[in-house]
Amino acid sequence: METKIDKSIELKAKLVLINSKLHFNGMVDGNQPISIDYIPPIGDGLGYTSLELLLLSFSSCLGSALLTFLRRMQKNIDGFEINANGVRNTEHPTGFKTITLEILIKSNNTTDSEVSKLIKMAEETYCPVWAMVKGNVKVETVVVIQ
Amino acid sequence: METKIDKSIELKAKLVLINSKLHFNGMVDGNQPISIDYIPPIGDGLGYTSLELLLLSFSSCLGSALLTFLRRMQKNIDGFEINANGVRNTEHPTGFKTITLEILIKSNNTTDSEVSKLIKMAEETYCPVWAMVKGNVKVETVVVIQ
Repeated sequence: METKIDKSIELKAKLVLINSKLHFNGMVDGNQPISIDYIPPIGDGLGYTSLELLLLSFSSCLGSALLTFLRRMQKNIDGFEINANGVRNTEHPTGFKTITLEILIKSNNTTDSEVSKLIKMAEETYCPVWAMVKGNVKVETVVVIQ
Repeated sequence: METKIDKSIELKAKLVLINSKLHFNGMVDGNQPISIDYIPPIGDGLGYTSLELLLLSFSSCLGSALLTFLRRMQKNIDGFEINANGVRNTEHPTGFKTITLEILIKSNNTTDSEVSKLIKMAEETYCPVWAMVKGNVKVETVVVIQ
């Protein structure tokens, strides 16, 4: 479908409308298409909304940065989840006013303060999605070590 | 899995690590999970990257805004696609320096200049994802009416 590209430099994605409202297939070569739609009555609620995809983009970006550092620090990671919650602005543009990321880590040798330092590093340098929303969205994080 | 929420106000998503590197399942209640991973050797390339999800978030946001206006204007839409391309910064944070969105519309009664006006409205007011990256990413659009 698409030619091989170096994803450390450049990325591509394709969106195709598949009904007469707002139901799309989102695609990147080699991956299962993502069903994307908007909430009724404007859409039919048949897939992820754009803002839910943004929450997953942000969570996976932060999660990847944190896990990379935690493993370099020889931490045992027996489970890792992020619950993302975004509250929209009430006026247009109705993007997120606040995003809250609850980070759950199962680890017997990791402390809250170690993770908090890594979150700070991710915010400042290593999480590109955070950098892209910086100044426009308030981001809150909650760390739960289990 | 999750309680019903009003998505016009608040949205939620969940990310769960499913291997010992950076392979995640991304989930929103009622939808097929999205396989998310980072490129080798840091990840295994088993799913969408965070930045590809951002491209799909942005494309579907802009697409939804444009289609909503085009239909209000009684335009015939026989096909609609967006090809998104993002070029990353070479230094950390390696988010997008530039995102290019090529918007392909099959329509026998729509002009380039009408779509360009709607893109301007989306940028300024009606595309929340655009508002969230504003000032941090350069966005270019190309319109092709077929």
